[in-house]
Amino acid sequence: MLRTPQPAPDARSAQLDKLQQTVANIKYDEKGLVPAVIVDAKTRQVLMVAYMNDKALLETVRTGKTHFWSRSRKQYWMKGETSGHVQEVKAVYIDCDMDTVVVEVSQHGAACHEGYRSCFYRRLNDKGEWEVVAEKVFDPESVYKKPT
Amino acid sequence: MLRTPQPAPDARSAQLDKLQQTVANIKYDEKGLVPAVIVDAKTRQVLMVAYMNDKALLETVRTGKTHFWSRSRKQYWMKGETSGHVQEVKAVYIDCDMDTVVVEVSQHGAACHEGYRSCFYRRLNDKGEWEVVAEKVFDPESVYKKPT
Repeated sequence: MLRTPQPAPDARSAQLDKLQQTVANIKYDEKGLVPAVIVDAKTRQVLMVAYMNDKALLETVRTGKTHFWSRSRKQYWMKGETSGHVQEVKAVYIDCDMDTVVVEVSQHGAACHEGYRSCFYRRLNDKGEWEVVAEKVFDPESVYKKPT
Repeated sequence: MLRTPQPAPDARSAQLDKLQQTVANIKYDEKGLVPAVIVDAKTRQVLMVAYMNDKALLETVRTGKTHFWSRSRKQYWMKGETSGHVQEVKAVYIDCDMDTVVVEVSQHGAACHEGYRSCFYRRLNDKGEWEVVAEKVFDPESVYKKPT
């Protein structure tokens, strides 16, 4: 990613300009968003899908931690800001249509707020029903406990 | 998936009813769509992301081949209908929010219409630019040649 090795200040500024231009050229939807598929860099498991606008993607690359735009809360959020389950960015890919990104990460803890490693913990079975096919790796109530 | 082993007609009808109900309960966006992340069942590589509505997802499960809704052409399409590069469905997953699906497939040929195995063939480099990091596996012009 951008941060290592650290270039000289002038070069860093030029890199940031280029990065801003690259991020601006992505084809965002009418709400200014693209889906971001977050993948475990080692196992390639799809961990979650969330949405980024240009600022969230720029912040993701600049800080090396995934940042998103919450469509329901209408605000930026960093994955792990409450749970500590941050995602260290290893690589960012763009698709042929320039309207979707894949981000490879090193996941601290687990991605799903329900306690599973991946948000995709249910598989369609032969009966036409969703079936849980993973085990919880943390207790959501203890991680996301409400302030008293 | 639903098709093997073949149940008796009554059981099959009950399965289809259940499947239709399961598919109807997904949280589609205001356009009736969910993003579908298509993943290689063996390598776990993310091949493409496209959009499904309820009918496309039902057709995907019923036929065992991925079907999508084209937002630009406003019509259903089966992956591979032109190129022959169909995707055999191995498993379908849903996320915690019930608004995104992951489909594991066996990919015939390649997923990207530009000739790459995956649509995500460009990675962000240290200069802040997209860099092609894959090799083409077919010639798009010969596969998608226009009728004469």
